[in-house]
Amino acid sequence: MYSFIGRVWTLEYHSMYVTPLLLLLATCASRGHGEEQQSGGHVSIVVVGGTGDLAKKYLWQGFFQLYSKQVSSGNSFSFYAGGQSPVDKATPIFFGILKAMSCPKDVSDERCAVLKEQFLRLAQYRQLKSLDDYQDLAQHVARQVRDEGLTEAGRLFYLSVPAFAYADIADKINSSCRPVGAATWLRVVLEKPFGHDLRSAQVLAAQLGKALRDEEMYRIDHYLGKQVVSKILPFRVENKKFLDPIWNKHHIERIEIVLKETLDVQGRIPFYDQYGVIRDVIQNHLTEVLALLTMRLPANLSDSEEILQNKLWLFSSLLPLGKNQAVVGQYQGYQSEVRQELNKTNDYVSITPTFAAVLAHTDAAQFDGVPILLISGKMLDERVGYARVVFKNDMFCLQHSFHCKPKEIIFYFGHGSLQYPAILVSKNLFKPSVTENEWKEVTDHANVNVLGSPLSDYYVQTPKAQREAYAELISHIFAGHKNSFISTENLLASWDLWTPLLESLADSFPRVYPGGADNGDMLDVHLKGKEIAYIRDVVLLGPDQVGGESTRSFLIMQGKYRGADMVSAWAEELVERLAADIQEAAEAAVLQDGVFHLALSGGSTPIALFHRLALHHFSFPWSNTHIWMVDERCVPPTDPECNFHTIHQHVLQHVRIPYHNIHPMPVQFKQRLCVEEDATAELYQEDIGRLVNGSRFHFVLLGVGHDGHTASLFPHSEAANSHNGLVVLAESPVKPHRRMSLTFGALNRAHRVALLVMGKGKHELVTQLSRVKDDANKWPVTGLKPTNGTLVWYLDYDALLG
Amino acid sequence: MYSFIGRVWTLEYHSMYVTPLLLLLATCASRGHGEEQQSGGHVSIVVVGGTGDLAKKYLWQGFFQLYSKQVSSGNSFSFYAGGQSPVDKATPIFFGILKAMSCPKDVSDERCAVLKEQFLRLAQYRQLKSLDDYQDLAQHVARQVRDEGLTEAGRLFYLSVPAFAYADIADKINSSCRPVGAATWLRVVLEKPFGHDLRSAQVLAAQLGKALRDEEMYRIDHYLGKQVVSKILPFRVENKKFLDPIWNKHHIERIEIVLKETLDVQGRIPFYDQYGVIRDVIQNHLTEVLALLTMRLPANLSDSEEILQNKLWLFSSLLPLGKNQAVVGQYQGYQSEVRQELNKTNDYVSITPTFAAVLAHTDAAQFDGVPILLISGKMLDERVGYARVVFKNDMFCLQHSFHCKPKEIIFYFGHGSLQYPAILVSKNLFKPSVTENEWKEVTDHANVNVLGSPLSDYYVQTPKAQREAYAELISHIFAGHKNSFISTENLLASWDLWTPLLESLADSFPRVYPGGADNGDMLDVHLKGKEIAYIRDVVLLGPDQVGGESTRSFLIMQGKYRGADMVSAWAEELVERLAADIQEAAEAAVLQDGVFHLALSGGSTPIALFHRLALHHFSFPWSNTHIWMVDERCVPPTDPECNFHTIHQHVLQHVRIPYHNIHPMPVQFKQRLCVEEDATAELYQEDIGRLVNGSRFHFVLLGVGHDGHTASLFPHSEAANSHNGLVVLAESPVKPHRRMSLTFGALNRAHRVALLVMGKGKHELVTQLSRVKDDANKWPVTGLKPTNGTLVWYLDYDALLG
Repeated sequence: MYSFIGRVWTLEYHSMYVTPLLLLLATCASRGHGEEQQSGGHVSIVVVGGTGDLAKKYLWQGFFQLYSKQVSSGNSFSFYAGGQSPVDKATPIFFGILKAMSCPKDVSDERCAVLKEQFLRLAQYRQLKSLDDYQDLAQHVARQVRDEGLTEAGRLFYLSVPAFAYADIADKINSSCRPVGAATWLRVVLEKPFGHDLRSAQVLAAQLGKALRDEEMYRIDHYLGKQVVSKILPFRVENKKFLDPIWNKHHIERIEIVLKETLDVQGRIPFYDQYGVIRDVIQNHLTEVLALLTMRLPANLSDSEEILQNKLWLFSSLLPLGKNQAVVGQYQGYQSEVRQELNKTNDYVSITPTFAAVLAHTDAAQFDGVPILLISGKMLDERVGYARVVFKNDMFCLQHSFHCKPKEIIFYFGHGSLQYPAILVSKNLFKPSVTENEWKEVTDHANVNVLGSPLSDYYVQTPKAQREAYAELISHIFAGHKNSFISTENLLASWDLWTPLLESLADSFPRVYPGGADNGDMLDVHLKGKEIAYIRDVVLLGPDQVGGESTRSFLIMQGKYRGADMVSAWAEELVERLAADIQEAAEAAVLQDGVFHLALSGGSTPIALFHRLALHHFSFPWSNTHIWMVDERCVPPTDPECNFHTIHQHVLQHVRIPYHNIHPMPVQFKQRLCVEEDATAELYQEDIGRLVNGSRFHFVLLGVGHDGHTASLFPHSEAANSHNGLVVLAESPVKPHRRMSLTFGALNRAHRVALLVMGKGKHELVTQLSRVKDDANKWPVTGLKPTNGTLVWYLDYDALLG
Repeated sequence: MYSFIGRVWTLEYHSMYVTPLLLLLATCASRGHGEEQQSGGHVSIVVVGGTGDLAKKYLWQGFFQLYSKQVSSGNSFSFYAGGQSPVDKATPIFFGILKAMSCPKDVSDERCAVLKEQFLRLAQYRQLKSLDDYQDLAQHVARQVRDEGLTEAGRLFYLSVPAFAYADIADKINSSCRPVGAATWLRVVLEKPFGHDLRSAQVLAAQLGKALRDEEMYRIDHYLGKQVVSKILPFRVENKKFLDPIWNKHHIERIEIVLKETLDVQGRIPFYDQYGVIRDVIQNHLTEVLALLTMRLPANLSDSEEILQNKLWLFSSLLPLGKNQAVVGQYQGYQSEVRQELNKTNDYVSITPTFAAVLAHTDAAQFDGVPILLISGKMLDERVGYARVVFKNDMFCLQHSFHCKPKEIIFYFGHGSLQYPAILVSKNLFKPSVTENEWKEVTDHANVNVLGSPLSDYYVQTPKAQREAYAELISHIFAGHKNSFISTENLLASWDLWTPLLESLADSFPRVYPGGADNGDMLDVHLKGKEIAYIRDVVLLGPDQVGGESTRSFLIMQGKYRGADMVSAWAEELVERLAADIQEAAEAAVLQDGVFHLALSGGSTPIALFHRLALHHFSFPWSNTHIWMVDERCVPPTDPECNFHTIHQHVLQHVRIPYHNIHPMPVQFKQRLCVEEDATAELYQEDIGRLVNGSRFHFVLLGVGHDGHTASLFPHSEAANSHNGLVVLAESPVKPHRRMSLTFGALNRAHRVALLVMGKGKHELVTQLSRVKDDANKWPVTGLKPTNGTLVWYLDYDALLG
C-alpha cells in the first residue's frame, strides 16, 4: 500500500516537516522515477528490530542513502521496520528515527527534503512477532507487487535483533517470506555476535543453514564497510610493484592492528559481560583486517571465492593462540558497573576483559616470524583505529637523512590525531598510486603527528567523500556483492583460531587499569619471541614474601636416586639445567673428538627441553652434532606417531644440522615396516659402528614409562633381556606394538645417560622405583648401568615430591 | 752512559728548561729510586724511527708516562731514539720532541719538571742504520749494565718505521741485540701496516718469524689501547646477566661500527694511496672491534690464549665478503692530491677508496642474520668513532612511554657530539654495573644528542681519567700483557677475510663525494639482505640512453631451439623466470596431486636459481615438495664434491622441507661407494616407484656439459645408451669416475624438463648443438625427448649469443 506508486498516506507524520511545495516536487520526482522503474524491479526491505539502537543510528540512514542513489535507477522500494511492539506504539518512534535522517553533503537542502518525503511515504512499521505476522507481511508484499503491476526484484531482511532470535526469525522467513519466483532474490542480513565460541557458532550456523542458503546470508562485520579497510586489498593490488619486494618477513618488522576506545561499556553490560573485548572486536574486526593485510592477493579482486579461499588459507597458517599469546585487562570501574547492571552483590566478580593485547604469528613463509599485534580496549587514553605495517630499517645514513626515518604504511581507520580515514605511506618507502577516482592525495598537511611522526613524513590518501560503513555495506548488499561479508567458513575459521585462547583465558584475572591517560605504561606489552607479557609487573607480595638468595638456591637440588646422581628442580629450571648439561657435554665432545653423538628419545616429556636447546643455545655445536634415535615406532616415517617426527618438529627444523648427521631409525625399508629379514636393526647398528667411536654415544636422553620401560625395552620382553647387539626389534604392550630400540648394550656403553622424568603423574612410579631392586626384566629402567659412563636422573619436583 | 745512575750529561739541552733547584730535586729523587732498583731490573727502550711523526706525537709521551709510573717501582731505564740520521743532526730534534712532553694532570708542575729532567738524562739519540750500529748499541747496553752493576730485565724495541724495513731490522736485532740470559726478555713492537693482503702478510710474518719468536712480537693496533675498546670484553662480562638473554639475533637488530673522519689524507698520499680506507682502518681497527663485540666470552678475561681462540672462531664464522658486500667512495679532492704528491700527470687516475661501507654477517647461530656494518671514511661531516648495538623494538606502548624508545648500547670511542669516551646503555635496557673503580657513572647529562637520542636516555659510563691509547699499550707491553696485541694467527685470519673483498674491488671505481656536510645522502647505504648498495643512484646516462619500454620487452625472449621451446634472457632475468616457472609447476602439482616431485642437478650453474627459490619464493609449497637428485658422484655423502652438498647448502638449509621429503642418492651403502652388488641404483628406483606417481617427476632441472652430457649420461657410455630402469651406475670421463644417474627412461617420463645453460663458455656448445642431429650416444643431451611432457631450454644471452 505504501509503495512508490499509488501511495496512501496519513498526513499526521509528514505534515510535521514537509511543506506543500516540497510535496509537489516530490510528486514530480516520483513520477519521473516511476517511468523508469519497469527496467528494475521492486525491492522490499525489512529491518527486523527496526526501531532499535543500531537501526536508529545507522541502518535507516544507510537505507535512505541507498534510496537516494537508487531513486532514479529503475528500482522501486518499500521499507518496513519490524518489531515486537504493536503498530500504534512503535510507528511514532519509527518515524521519529526517519525524521532525523540526513542527506549526503552534495545533496541540496531542497532535494533532500523531497527525498526524505518520498522515503517516508515508502516506509511503514509492522509488528513482526508471530509466524502470522510474517505471513501477513509476505501477503502484503505480494499484493502490492500484484496490485501495482511490479516485477519483484528481491526481499532484504535485516535482522537487527539479539543473536538468540536469529534462528527463529530465519525459520519464519524461510517458511513464509520466501519470494515465489526463482528470479527474485532473498537476502538476510545478520549482525554479530555470530556465536560465542566455535561450538556455538557451529550450532548457530547449522540452525541458520536449515532455513537459509549460504548465498542468502549476509553476515555484517561493519569494519569491512569502513572505507580504509575495504581499500586494503585494492591498495595492495594497485601498489603491487612497490609492495612485492617488501611485503614479507625480510622487510616487515611487525604489524600492529589497534582499536583504542575511550568509552566504557556502561549500559551495555548485560551484553558485554558475556563477551568481552576479544569476542566483541578482536575475533571479528581486527582479525578481518589481519587477513586483508596478510592473505595472498587474489588474481581478481572481484572473485569472492578466491578471496575467501586465500583468507581461509591465511587463517589455517596462523599459529595457535594460547595463554602466552595474550594479556588481558579490565578497567577499574567495570566491576561496579557490572554489579549495578546485573544486579549483583558486592562479592560478585566479573573477569570479563575490557582490554586485550594478542600476539599472533603465521607460519606462512612470507610472514613467518613477523609479530602481528592485535590490540583493543575500552577506557584507553585515545579513540583511534589503525593497522600499521612497520618496516625494518635497512638503511644506514652517514648524516641524518630522510632515508633513515621510520618506514611504515598506516591504514588509518579514523579518529585519533588525524580525525579522518586515510592511508599513509612513509615518503621514504614509495609514492603510492592513486588510481581510483574515489580517493585523493592530501597535500596540505596539517601540523599534526600521526603515531609519533609528523604527517608531512607521509604520502597521504583519503577518500574524496567519507562514507559511513553501514551505508557502504547496505549498498553492497543491494548490489549482491558478497566480498564485504563474513561467509560461514570464514566465521568458523576465525572462531577456530580464537576459541582455544578464550578457553585458556577463561579463569585468568585481567589486570585492573584506572582508565584514560592514567593507564600510563600499565598496559604496555613486551614481546618475547612468540609470547607476550605486560612490561610492568604488578607486585602484590610484601617484601617479606619475596624470596632472597635462599629461595634461589632451592631452585636446583642435587642428590642421589637409586644410587645414581640426581638433579631435581621445578620443571623449568630442570629443563634449563639439563639443556646446559647437554651443551657442556657437546662442547667437551667436539673439543676432544670433533663430533658429538647425541641419542634422543621421543614422546612429549622432552619437548620443552628440545625447545630450550633449539631456541636458547645459540652456541650449541649443531654442525658437529649427530642425532641418533633411542627408539622408534614401526610406522611409516612420515607418520606423526614417529618419535623422529617429534624430534624433527621441535629440534631439527630449527637448527642447522647437516642432513647426513641426522639418523632416523630405518623402520621402513623397501616399503615394509620392521621386517626381521630386512635386517634393518643391523643396518642401524652398522651405521652406529661406522660413525660412533667405540659405538659409545656421548649423550643419551631417556625417559621412563609408567611400567618402568625405557627406550622401547618393555618389562618381560625379549628386547629388555637381550644382551647382544646395539639395536633390536622390540615388542610393546601398547600400539603400535612393533618398535626398534637401542639395547642395554648400546645404552650402557654411553659416556653419559640422562633420565628425564617429569610431572605429578610419574610421582608414584618414582616412589616405587626408589624402593625396588635392580631387575631389568621386571623394571627395565633398572637395567641402566653405564659400564664406563655416568647416569644422572633429572626429576622435576612434581615427579619427585608429588 | 746515560743510564739512571751515574749519568753524564751535556748541559746544552737540559739547561734550556731545568733550573738548578730542580736539578737538585731530580738527583734526590733518582737516589731514592736507585735504592729500590735492585728488586726490579734495567730496561732498555729503543724506538727505531724515534724522531718520526708517531714517536713525536705519541710514543715518547707514552714512554714518559710509563717512566712516571715506574719511577719508584724498582726498575731503571734507558731510552734510545734510533734513526737513519747522524747523531749531531738528530739529537736536537729528538730533545725538541722530549721537551714538548707533558705530564698527567694529577702530577704537580714541580714534580713534572723533575720527572722530565730525569727522563732527559736517561735518553739519547743513536744512529741505527748498519748492523754495526746495532752491535754498538748492544755493547753499550751490556757495558752500562755491567758498569753500573745492574740486573737486566729486558730490551724493548719499538719499530716506528715503514713496514718494508721490519724484516731487516728484526734480523739485526736477532743477530746482535738479543739479551744474553734467558731471564731477560726481548720485546719487539711493530706498527701497522702488517702487509697489504693475505699473501704479503704471510710473507712478512714468515720473515719476522725467522728472527723473532711469536711471544716476542707485539703488533700494535692502537684501537685496542682505546679505553672504551679495551673495556668491551670486561663490560660484556660484568653485565653478563643482563646481556645473556639479549645478546643474540632474536634481540639485536644490527651492529654498526663506525669511524668517521673529517680530515683528508694530504701529505700521506704516498702511503695512503697504496692502502685505502679498508686496509688503513677497517681490516684492523674496526674488525678488532667487531670481534670483541661478537666473539664468545672467554671463561677468564686474562686468558689470552682462550681469547685468541674465540676470536679466531669468530673470524672463521664470518661469511665471505665480496663485491656486493661493500660500497666505496673517494673524496673529490683526492685525485689532485694524488697527482701532486705522486708527481703524476692529469690523466692519472687513482681508484683508492677513502670511504667504504661494508656489510658483514656471521653464520654463528647466535648472530646469524644480524647485519654488521663497518663504515669509515675521510672528509666526512663529523669526526666520531663508535660501535653501536641496536636492539629490536620488542615493546608495544599504548601511550608513548620510555619502554618504546630506541634501545641500544653504544661504545663511544670519542669525539663527536659527546667529546669523551663512554659506554652508553639505553635506560630501558638495563642499568649496567660499574664494578671497576677506573670507571664512573656520568649523571649530570649535558643537553646533547648522541647519534640521534638525548644523552639523558642513557646510562653513561666513562673512564675516571682519560688515557691515551699509545700510553695504555706501552704500559701493557712493559707488563708483558699480550691481550691487546695482534697475534700472527689473528692477523692472518683478518687478512683472510678482507683479501677476497679487496681483490674484488681492485677495479671498482669509487663514488666521488664532495666532502664534509656537502656529502648529504650521497654515501647513505641500503642493506638488501646480505648485500649493500648506495641508496642514491648516480645516473650518468643522458635521457636518450635510458631504455624505455622497448628495452624492457627485450629482457626475456621466447623462441625455439632444437625444435623445443626456448626462453632466453640476461642471466638474472633468466633465473627469475625459471624460478617462477618452477613455482608455477609446483603449485599446479600440489593442487592436483597434493605433492610436487622436483629432481635437481648439482654443479655451479643452478646456484643462482637455488638462491632465488630459497630467498624470494615465500609461497613456494616446500612442505609438499620432494627433492630428488638427477645424478650424484660416488663420493662419501659429506664430501663437498657431492651434488647433494650443493643443493643442501643452497636450498635445503634455507627452507622447511620435511626430512623424509629429501632424497639423496644412496651412493654410499654399508660403507661402500656405488658397488653394483649393493643394488643401490635399484634402491633409489624403488623409492621413486613408491613415492612418485607413475615415476613421473613433475619437474626435472638439467644442465649440459661441454661434451654434451646431461645428468651423468656421458657420450659413448653405457648409461647414455641404457633403456632399462630409471637409475643406473654410470661412468664419467673425469674424476670422480663413478656416478649414479637418472636414465633417459626416468628423464623422458617427466612432466617437465628444464635445461639451464648459462655463460659465454657454453656459447660454442650451444651453437654446435643447434646444428647436430639427435644422437644420444654422441650428444647425450639430444636424447632428451619427453614422451608425454615438455622440454624447455633456458639459455642466457651469453650462452646463446656469445
